[in-house]
Amino acid sequence: MADISASSKWHEECGIFGAYSHTEDVSMMTYLGLYALQHRGQESAGIAVTDGAWMDVSRGMGLVNEVFRHQIPHMDNQYIAVGHVRYSTTGSSLLANTQPLMVNYAGGKISLAHNGNLTNAAQIRREMEEQGNIFQTSIDSEVFVNLIARSKAASIEDKIIESMKKIEGAYCLTIMTEDKLIGARDPHGFRPLCIGRAGDTWVLSSESCALSVAGVHYVRDVEPGEMVVIDKHGLKSYKFATVEKKAACIFEYIYFARPDSIIDGQSVHEARFMMGRILARESKFKGDIVISVPDSGTTAATGFAYESGIPFVEGLIKNRYIGRTFIQPTQKKRDIAVKLKLNPIVSVVKDKDIIMVDDSIVRGTTSGKIVRMLRKAGAKSIRMCVSSPPIGYPCYYGIDTSVRKELIAATKTVEEIREYIKADALHFLSLEGLKASIQSASSDDMCCACFNNYYPVESPKNDTVGADKYVFEHLKK
Amino acid sequence: MADISASSKWHEECGIFGAYSHTEDVSMMTYLGLYALQHRGQESAGIAVTDGAWMDVSRGMGLVNEVFRHQIPHMDNQYIAVGHVRYSTTGSSLLANTQPLMVNYAGGKISLAHNGNLTNAAQIRREMEEQGNIFQTSIDSEVFVNLIARSKAASIEDKIIESMKKIEGAYCLTIMTEDKLIGARDPHGFRPLCIGRAGDTWVLSSESCALSVAGVHYVRDVEPGEMVVIDKHGLKSYKFATVEKKAACIFEYIYFARPDSIIDGQSVHEARFMMGRILARESKFKGDIVISVPDSGTTAATGFAYESGIPFVEGLIKNRYIGRTFIQPTQKKRDIAVKLKLNPIVSVVKDKDIIMVDDSIVRGTTSGKIVRMLRKAGAKSIRMCVSSPPIGYPCYYGIDTSVRKELIAATKTVEEIREYIKADALHFLSLEGLKASIQSASSDDMCCACFNNYYPVESPKNDTVGADKYVFEHLKK
Amino acid sequence: MADISASSKWHEECGIFGAYSHTEDVSMMTYLGLYALQHRGQESAGIAVTDGAWMDVSRGMGLVNEVFRHQIPHMDNQYIAVGHVRYSTTGSSLLANTQPLMVNYAGGKISLAHNGNLTNAAQIRREMEEQGNIFQTSIDSEVFVNLIARSKAASIEDKIIESMKKIEGAYCLTIMTEDKLIGARDPHGFRPLCIGRAGDTWVLSSESCALSVAGVHYVRDVEPGEMVVIDKHGLKSYKFATVEKKAACIFEYIYFARPDSIIDGQSVHEARFMMGRILARESKFKGDIVISVPDSGTTAATGFAYESGIPFVEGLIKNRYIGRTFIQPTQKKRDIAVKLKLNPIVSVVKDKDIIMVDDSIVRGTTSGKIVRMLRKAGAKSIRMCVSSPPIGYPCYYGIDTSVRKELIAATKTVEEIREYIKADALHFLSLEGLKASIQSASSDDMCCACFNNYYPVESPKNDTVGADKYVFEHLKK
Amino acid sequence: MADISASSKWHEECGIFGAYSHTEDVSMMTYLGLYALQHRGQESAGIAVTDGAWMDVSRGMGLVNEVFRHQIPHMDNQYIAVGHVRYSTTGSSLLANTQPLMVNYAGGKISLAHNGNLTNAAQIRREMEEQGNIFQTSIDSEVFVNLIARSKAASIEDKIIESMKKIEGAYCLTIMTEDKLIGARDPHGFRPLCIGRAGDTWVLSSESCALSVAGVHYVRDVEPGEMVVIDKHGLKSYKFATVEKKAACIFEYIYFARPDSIIDGQSVHEARFMMGRILARESKFKGDIVISVPDSGTTAATGFAYESGIPFVEGLIKNRYIGRTFIQPTQKKRDIAVKLKLNPIVSVVKDKDIIMVDDSIVRGTTSGKIVRMLRKAGAKSIRMCVSSPPIGYPCYYGIDTSVRKELIAATKTVEEIREYIKADALHFLSLEGLKASIQSASSDDMCCACFNNYYPVESPKNDTVGADKYVFEHLKK
Repeated sequence: MADISASSKWHEECGIFGAYSHTEDVSMMTYLGLYALQHRGQESAGIAVTDGAWMDVSRGMGLVNEVFRHQIPHMDNQYIAVGHVRYSTTGSSLLANTQPLMVNYAGGKISLAHNGNLTNAAQIRREMEEQGNIFQTSIDSEVFVNLIARSKAASIEDKIIESMKKIEGAYCLTIMTEDKLIGARDPHGFRPLCIGRAGDTWVLSSESCALSVAGVHYVRDVEPGEMVVIDKHGLKSYKFATVEKKAACIFEYIYFARPDSIIDGQSVHEARFMMGRILARESKFKGDIVISVPDSGTTAATGFAYESGIPFVEGLIKNRYIGRTFIQPTQKKRDIAVKLKLNPIVSVVKDKDIIMVDDSIVRGTTSGKIVRMLRKAGAKSIRMCVSSPPIGYPCYYGIDTSVRKELIAATKTVEEIREYIKADALHFLSLEGLKASIQSASSDDMCCACFNNYYPVESPKNDTVGADKYVFEHLKK
Repeated sequence: MADISASSKWHEECGIFGAYSHTEDVSMMTYLGLYALQHRGQESAGIAVTDGAWMDVSRGMGLVNEVFRHQIPHMDNQYIAVGHVRYSTTGSSLLANTQPLMVNYAGGKISLAHNGNLTNAAQIRREMEEQGNIFQTSIDSEVFVNLIARSKAASIEDKIIESMKKIEGAYCLTIMTEDKLIGARDPHGFRPLCIGRAGDTWVLSSESCALSVAGVHYVRDVEPGEMVVIDKHGLKSYKFATVEKKAACIFEYIYFARPDSIIDGQSVHEARFMMGRILARESKFKGDIVISVPDSGTTAATGFAYESGIPFVEGLIKNRYIGRTFIQPTQKKRDIAVKLKLNPIVSVVKDKDIIMVDDSIVRGTTSGKIVRMLRKAGAKSIRMCVSSPPIGYPCYYGIDTSVRKELIAATKTVEEIREYIKADALHFLSLEGLKASIQSASSDDMCCACFNNYYPVESPKNDTVGADKYVFEHLKK
Repeated sequence: MADISASSKWHEECGIFGAYSHTEDVSMMTYLGLYALQHRGQESAGIAVTDGAWMDVSRGMGLVNEVFRHQIPHMDNQYIAVGHVRYSTTGSSLLANTQPLMVNYAGGKISLAHNGNLTNAAQIRREMEEQGNIFQTSIDSEVFVNLIARSKAASIEDKIIESMKKIEGAYCLTIMTEDKLIGARDPHGFRPLCIGRAGDTWVLSSESCALSVAGVHYVRDVEPGEMVVIDKHGLKSYKFATVEKKAACIFEYIYFARPDSIIDGQSVHEARFMMGRILARESKFKGDIVISVPDSGTTAATGFAYESGIPFVEGLIKNRYIGRTFIQPTQKKRDIAVKLKLNPIVSVVKDKDIIMVDDSIVRGTTSGKIVRMLRKAGAKSIRMCVSSPPIGYPCYYGIDTSVRKELIAATKTVEEIREYIKADALHFLSLEGLKASIQSASSDDMCCACFNNYYPVESPKNDTVGADKYVFEHLKK
Repeated sequence: MADISASSKWHEECGIFGAYSHTEDVSMMTYLGLYALQHRGQESAGIAVTDGAWMDVSRGMGLVNEVFRHQIPHMDNQYIAVGHVRYSTTGSSLLANTQPLMVNYAGGKISLAHNGNLTNAAQIRREMEEQGNIFQTSIDSEVFVNLIARSKAASIEDKIIESMKKIEGAYCLTIMTEDKLIGARDPHGFRPLCIGRAGDTWVLSSESCALSVAGVHYVRDVEPGEMVVIDKHGLKSYKFATVEKKAACIFEYIYFARPDSIIDGQSVHEARFMMGRILARESKFKGDIVISVPDSGTTAATGFAYESGIPFVEGLIKNRYIGRTFIQPTQKKRDIAVKLKLNPIVSVVKDKDIIMVDDSIVRGTTSGKIVRMLRKAGAKSIRMCVSSPPIGYPCYYGIDTSVRKELIAATKTVEEIREYIKADALHFLSLEGLKASIQSASSDDMCCACFNNYYPVESPKNDTVGADKYVFEHLKK
């Protein structure tokens, strides 16, 4: 079995959601919200609900519609829910590692959904284990709930704040107690989290694209270093930390987020369209048509076409039905996976000078296969434009990155990459161009570490271990 | 449970495939081929294989990757396979109605996969029943195998030809005996069927988009009224019928086929792009941007943009993960289904004069919801362009059409439809414009009955029953 | 995967059931009835129901509680149902071969459940195929429905009778039309079928043990050569054939039927208990204790103990939870399967002279393993008593028998068998003793062909093919 | 859905198993062992294995053959495994509550399988939570692993011993570290645990009946208060506690254990057979036949027959295929569940004076239904013998007992019970008789609290809460 849906892209780790309402069905809202956040994680899904006394969680491996095929969690008087979709960044693909995590502690029950990656989780966990703690999963969210449970602070709010002060790295959280829905975003604001509302109904969501389907309107983003507590008194804000410079992940705008989301005031589509426009200006590429590698390159491609006046045409068709497939090992060798997913439209590309736009190049193998495919279909020339700079450095903040040596841009120049993928020309968007694309948000508040090696939070020393999602599983070996 | 993937579109019924090879894995080729034909039917899938002596079939409800999650059919010396994906046009959504149908008859075993709809199947079936035949399914393919089995002709080729002479309507077939792979296309050529080859490996496929993934190249289309027989002697052609005018379904070019397919010499993408260009000329609509209803309207939208010079931009985001969902009845009332599937990009559509392109309007309800959605997102005006004429008449040849009164264009004028969907302007592509879009194929050889009420094959008298996919199930009531 | 529930016993093929009621839930009655008939077939289960207009069937592989885990068939005004549990005698273990078979024919719909084996089905099928009939399953029940459908007789009753006159072999049927429940038993009465009733509620069942759970009381057995038709006018009987000598399968009393059933007036328990008593008289075996091979040998063992005065004690414990198991091939070699199923009680058998009673010996391998197991547990001596004569001849009437050469008694004398299984003594019940055990039924009306080579219905000439459950699948090879 | 396999019996909680071998497949041994222990728990099953570095666990709801239908855990160099089957005594029927529990702690990984019930777990858990511990399950085994992880002792052996000293109640454990297999039995020896061996292959098992299928022979029982550690040096024994009086659960001999097991030197079958003999002496009941309520009453019934000379005959047939069934609420009212499970043999019981033996009476409802069933079948009189004294007091040591008021013997005299179940006579085995049945073990070392209200370990004060399996789930409400 091969998962040919697995792209050569970097993977965003998770989507989180929370709903508080005495009038609406919070479980259904969360279910619909997770549907809209499915692009952030397809490995597992979970929903926890409470009626103020009991708390229940339902989790499983697979897409939201697979996990909740027959039913969604339901309690008669449920009024708070949190949900999670996951692409594994820490921990193996095990049922035990699915979220939300639901635990008992001295203060009651809490359920927690987490998006991000803690850079000092391994160290804290080791310390806790030395003090006699056990760990039943290999996800760093379990460190979080242990910190909360061990806090001597009086209120749950203070317990969470105290815990967050010990934690470093990237995290957004939606936490549910028996009577509160709590959201928090790390001081750098690596990952997005926004607030939606309709009357007394409140929602927390990784992205604003999930708000309308949940029936609420966008209020604002949770601020970096802010915790919001929603209960019967409404929403209360706590500022638990400030840092000199915020560091929102710029890759959310390049690839992760859905184009119809707005993050920190910046429309994702607008940013991505502008990347395409600036690409056109920077590259000065000419050709007969602009095509995209669907779907991730399409917005920038339309921007390129807009700026250059060269028409945008579909040149590659993406099979919409790809999932886990049953392919024999011998078949795999023959590029079947890419062929199943993408097919060129011969009548479009034949005898054409093509400008092809994609969002990023990680290892370069897929780009090479696509170029070969287009050439075989008769393309006269292929100029490739990438709407991000070369990725030369790994991510420690929640992206499923390979170790540095697997990143093609860590070891090859742009010209060497061009030669490797056999394109006629290759242009990467400059970092300046990228930052200029993000006009509504302050581009100084962005984390661009994967491009410029400037890490806002100290990274683990060893770059093999640091970015390793199996970190907790190796510890004891 | 509601299937929110169910669009308001007309549904193509089936995709068929066949492979013959002594060197390649015909079962795997068929599996991959069905993957590429998945857009033609998502309800069930099946593959039959033979090793020359035994024959086996595996069928199930669901997508190709669901039905064949753990294994695909396999025999040690298999060398012929036929496959089928289905959207039900006749018969209920039952396991018993999946294809390929595999039966024993006096001459041995045959497996048959069928795409299309027979207009006189009910009548033939009734006659056969009166002669003592039983029927175990409610698909009209069972009529076919009975005709073949009862034929007194000497060879299987003649048996099939004799059967086809009794049958009226639309059909493409891939049939497998213990030593032959046979393909046939009805005299009018309603549905597509093409031939692929690589050395001694032969493939039959509903669409050419499935050839490259199976590792073969396009040879030609099977001609209307042609039967091809592939065995150890290679391919042999039989012309079993000729009609004055061919009648290939024009909707294949408008909506059903994948843009990367070539049908009867005409690139689907090219036709669809040209529909957009002609739409621009006919409508003369002006606006700030051209958007599409993804994915079916996108090719025509890019053609409109090309012709008009108005930039193509994504205005609606389609959720790629929609499948069967668990939605409460009360939720359904609130347009949740459409919201889950499509979301407007506010930053794109706000304060804009929009030209929106879709491929067709069947009942008008979805178009109305989209227009409302765009207006709520701030669109200044919405001019809708449809890349087909108004659908005023039902289809009797294999499309899941409602009875005539459900077709909005059967009872409303264009102006009334515009008012119903609340668009600022509405233009349907003229039939002449549509035909002109199909330059490489003879547009005189097209069936346009749903637009012009000219039916190439006599239709059942009663238009309620005729287009009814449950026809055989009602008979006895 | 090995099915260690598969015993070395002969397998009864099927259990059938039917219910007619305007006041009770016929679908639930049939479900419960099949539960009670589960011992007659564990491979598949199915239930068909009708409300007088529509007819629906639900079938699947597995036990009744697996197939109907989530729901049983239901129609709002259902009032007739037929059900089936199957151990395959003809046809492979395929979903397509499950019953009841539901078909359309000129007269409407019928569902048919069949227990038995037709000796001339292959020949009739061949003739039908030559006349152009197709066959979609490899069960001989499909021959039956074809005969019914082709009959020119006016009424369904006459159609069925005409069909049965063409058929030879063993069969009991429950057939459902839109308004009638029909039961029939072949002229020899090979297989059992009885009638139950409670007011206007009627039941047909393979065995009387299923009546009480369905809430009805035993009325009588259907006579050999009798067809009963239940409809709004009550029950009507048709005598469609008479034969000189009836031939009820004597193995129903020895092994197949549940001890709490009464077949043709004879209590199964009473017969089996008497077999044990006569065994004691015939064998004159002495020992410390009488043990049984559970569960099939227990009734006879208690009879032996009763007659001999030697105490009955449990000497072997049967694991009640055996089903399909995951065992590695290497493990299988080591008698794991028998060990998992049976375990000796050391404290019982150690240093004892043991008389062990089982119902039959087919191949002798299991008996040998049990004797070895008991010896290893310390038994001083093991005298084995078998409550049936040596099985020297295959069965052509519905029992899953090996070809003759696999029957140990076909090639070995009793003394050779004793040596093969390493017992200290071995006694088979004499045929006279067996017949004497069945006091309430006429033992002259029994089929004892497997013991005495006297076949009531002419058997196929070739004893390899004749008893072959894959007969239809081989035909075309 | 109703689980009609659920009897009115008390439920044993769990079976545990462990295997250590460098030559045999420990995972397969554990799988087979759990099969043989299936009678001790049918709700969930799990197996954990280690290869010395990694550790993996696979758990699921259902029978062993359902949980491990497709595969069992496997590592290339696996050499230790522990397994568990569960009937829930603490915690809901949730996947999260299945065992073995596998956790990380400072010293590495451990997997733990637990049989029993800790009487001070709730209190310890509360204390731990107050110190900041979280709990993710509601089974008291989680308390155990937390105690081990928090122990400051140097070696794992000492950590476990230290933990056991804090724990009160009934427990047997199989624990696996990366290089040791450890077994332990509480100081009173409430639950059984034995050691098996074949060369360098070691096994720990709840009952000896699982040894032969695992290919090892019985060595001895683990002593109350003993811990055994198996590693590359062989088996080492630690005596961690002694108590004045042992307190092995006498119900293991009456009902829980399989008759072919030997516990603490006493054959279960021998004890149970003797209970029947003493019952005959005590009751002095006369009658035509002795029947049993299968299967639990059978051994004692054969003992009764042996002692009295009255013949043992099967009077009730048990359906072997009962599992979870789909029964409508209205059906349930009508005793369908009991009827599906047990059916009287009319020819046996009609007009007879019957002595019926069962092992115990808990609530009395099932006994009443059986008596009514026999009377309806024509029994002249029914004298019931019970091979245990009246159960007047709840169990706090691992048995799923109702609160005291549900025990019929807590509120009714023997005569009142007889009247309630409508038997003609009723005799309970005296406590002296019961003790006398257990000759090979010291009956003074038995816990008979449910009969005599003498609790070896202090029970929770409140008898509603104490025996409550949801104890941890209620805590926070």
